[in-house]
Amino acid sequence: MARRPPARAPQEKPFRISGFAAVSALFARDPQRVERLYFEPQFQIAAAPFCKIMAQQRKLYRQVGAEELAKIAGTVLTGGIVAISRPRPVEPFNVDTFLRSPQPLLALDGVSNPHNLGAIVRTLAFFGVERLILTDHPEQATPSESAYRVAEGGFEYVALSRIDSTPETLQRLQKRCRVIGTAPDRKAMTSSMLKDDPKNGNDARPALIVLGNEERGLRPNVLAACSETLTIPGAGWVQSLNVAATAAILIYNLLLRSNTP
Amino acid sequence: MARRPPARAPQEKPFRISGFAAVSALFARDPQRVERLYFEPQFQIAAAPFCKIMAQQRKLYRQVGAEELAKIAGTVLTGGIVAISRPRPVEPFNVDTFLRSPQPLLALDGVSNPHNLGAIVRTLAFFGVERLILTDHPEQATPSESAYRVAEGGFEYVALSRIDSTPETLQRLQKRCRVIGTAPDRKAMTSSMLKDDPKNGNDARPALIVLGNEERGLRPNVLAACSETLTIPGAGWVQSLNVAATAAILIYNLLLRSNTP
Repeated sequence: MARRPPARAPQEKPFRISGFAAVSALFARDPQRVERLYFEPQFQIAAAPFCKIMAQQRKLYRQVGAEELAKIAGTVLTGGIVAISRPRPVEPFNVDTFLRSPQPLLALDGVSNPHNLGAIVRTLAFFGVERLILTDHPEQATPSESAYRVAEGGFEYVALSRIDSTPETLQRLQKRCRVIGTAPDRKAMTSSMLKDDPKNGNDARPALIVLGNEERGLRPNVLAACSETLTIPGAGWVQSLNVAATAAILIYNLLLRSNTP
Repeated sequence: MARRPPARAPQEKPFRISGFAAVSALFARDPQRVERLYFEPQFQIAAAPFCKIMAQQRKLYRQVGAEELAKIAGTVLTGGIVAISRPRPVEPFNVDTFLRSPQPLLALDGVSNPHNLGAIVRTLAFFGVERLILTDHPEQATPSESAYRVAEGGFEYVALSRIDSTPETLQRLQKRCRVIGTAPDRKAMTSSMLKDDPKNGNDARPALIVLGNEERGLRPNVLAACSETLTIPGAGWVQSLNVAATAAILIYNLLLRSNTP
């Protein structure tokens, strides 16, 4: 049981995926990625279908106490169930796959806190947005155990892809999308901007919103590669809106826009 | 320096308020609450105005190393600066104070995670919403050190008040506000519902949105005491939207509604 799996590329190193929501999404979508499953006694019934799948795959599953589970997970925030599983890989960006539906899209350029990444992926999955871009910003968070826990299963539904040479790629994307950078002190976001800005006429291109680092926002060369900028205007009491709150507001309002002709 | 302050009521027990945003909001709004101030060398210049205020108040301030600061704060998440300070008290609810402006309002009924409370307070402060209700739900989170850290200064701008006998109080409030409970599988929120629902005509009463526990939502008797219910519709991929993301979407859209006649 304690056999070590063979060494893998970093992206394929197994994660300890915690919490019932994340584990059930994993079994619903891609049970083959699970290598081992551990759970506390209170999940005996809820985990029975997962155990059946594990048995069919001839893989280990075991009921354990809370203390052992915390040791396995490396955290007390296990939610009572942990699957040792390969994470879903971050794929290289392919523009045609990415734009096959007219959904609003997000790109993250230096969102460094894994909780923010997880929260954004949960929100995208909630609203049925199935793709997310990560740029090549050196501080950009990538999928991690804590991001998976916060996303509550969202990573099984939202496909992540990585772009290189961010400014050049965004500039090329301008032909196919409205590339909208978020920045403080720019043109305020209004409902009309997200709905039927006369300037954008009946622009049917999907919006691609680019969100920057929690402290410093977008890199200047990334902001310069956007075709539009927007700011969510605040009262000035606190410096900024959290990036996950920003993402939730923008995605909700962009979906309203694309659903109301 | 290590003199213990006298025993206090639990609400007045000093907090270790961490992070530059929270500490500067505290000094900007209510420096008298600060009892001691500690910071790492990199804050020597940024903290100078705070030190001046501490000196005027004849209170202790001191530059310390990262390790000592983590010991003082009880966490490594100090952000390099920590103020030992009484928290702002949660006041008993007063309907006239509460409704003196027609702002949209939120009530939290069992939001148990202090990070969610802090995130909601940060969002309210960002948008200039200056009041938040906490109900008497036994699991409702109250201000804490981690909530203060996440709120990035928001607690200095958003006044919290506590209501008792939640269902009865909400029912009484129906005369003065639209009391809107959030629940899964209810009437979907649409832009028109938050803007100019013909059913609500030119209803000038401010909206009071009631948000429930992260796992179980609103208590049935609290939901029954609401005059309307709404749901943010999802794709069904993940079970729910995070409560702080929900709050951000609702507050943003309610403010749009109250600002666009």
